[in-house]
Amino acid sequence: MPLNQTAREAERERIARHVLDLVKERGSEIPWTVAMAESGLTRARFEALFADYDDMFDAVAQTWLAPQLQVMEEVLATTLPPPRKMYEFFRRRFVISQERFRADPQFFSILCEMGAANFERVRSYVDLADHYLCELIAEAQADGYFAGLEIDEALSMINQMVTVYTMPDALIYLGDKLSEKKLARIVDTMFIGLSGEAGADASGVNTLKVAS
Amino acid sequence: MPLNQTAREAERERIARHVLDLVKERGSEIPWTVAMAESGLTRARFEALFADYDDMFDAVAQTWLAPQLQVMEEVLATTLPPPRKMYEFFRRRFVISQERFRADPQFFSILCEMGAANFERVRSYVDLADHYLCELIAEAQADGYFAGLEIDEALSMINQMVTVYTMPDALIYLGDKLSEKKLARIVDTMFIGLSGEAGADASGVNTLKVAS
Repeated sequence: MPLNQTAREAERERIARHVLDLVKERGSEIPWTVAMAESGLTRARFEALFADYDDMFDAVAQTWLAPQLQVMEEVLATTLPPPRKMYEFFRRRFVISQERFRADPQFFSILCEMGAANFERVRSYVDLADHYLCELIAEAQADGYFAGLEIDEALSMINQMVTVYTMPDALIYLGDKLSEKKLARIVDTMFIGLSGEAGADASGVNTLKVAS
Repeated sequence: MPLNQTAREAERERIARHVLDLVKERGSEIPWTVAMAESGLTRARFEALFADYDDMFDAVAQTWLAPQLQVMEEVLATTLPPPRKMYEFFRRRFVISQERFRADPQFFSILCEMGAANFERVRSYVDLADHYLCELIAEAQADGYFAGLEIDEALSMINQMVTVYTMPDALIYLGDKLSEKKLARIVDTMFIGLSGEAGADASGVNTLKVAS
């Protein structure tokens, strides 16, 4: 009997959670056939839920990233001033990752590796985060911040400067060097300093001085 | 016949270059025994040059990172204004990595993996770069930049904000999104915005507003 859409989604999520538990338990990525065998479902039923490994990975990624999506949406819905709003946009996701990392560093590392190895499957999450960040940048520009920059330019610069707080792997090699306080400083530094004029002093295009 | 110190260094470097050629040719890390067999040296002679794999890896890393060390020292010796000097400090190393990445992305990736897997062996390079950056920060602070921050705090913030330009792996996943122009903007953004006061707006400690 085919499942209706809601029941099918719920069943996909149930299996995705089970796959995550197996990853945690066994300390490795779970192949398609193992996931099927461990699911307790018949092959036909399993294949009716997931077209292939990639499709199953999508469900796992969606389940794992659901809290991040939720906090991004919560922050977008607030009416905080732009610097605070952008800080919260990054901070809340960072806190989720940091808690997960601290709770089980090995499990966290494996999930980072899985994400890197299946990057195309998590791209839609990255794209959505970029989309939301563009909204925040537009709001900030309406208040006079990031003057003289196209939204896409500001997006790229901001993403680069906060990379260590958005890329989960950074927790593995930086650990306690990452903190909410430093993130707040970085966000303010960007709000104070980032504009279309930044770059001229550093690269020397505004003077006759040459570097060497 | 034991080699004198100079001849021994030269011979270590010669073998290190050969190992790098082998990594490039075969597309994989070169084990100790293979390096020995391919060196054309007797086992006794090889073991007189390198105590063990780690010691050989040190020689390989030293050879690979020599250009970076050289440009850091060149920049430190200049009398450029602080923003330009710091920009050059990061830019010149970034350009070396970018050229190497573009010349042979696969070889570059393997070396990144080797560096990550043997991080303790490249730590002295990272420590030296930090040491030099502290000098640049002290010079900048003498000119009034980064006010109200301890050198170590400024060091950590700056390293975090330019991570994508110093961590070679970033070239693999960001590629042409990294540019000298953006790096110049990031450096200026830090010089304009980074101080002990940054962080209060973003985190809201200066107001009664709360985030949620």
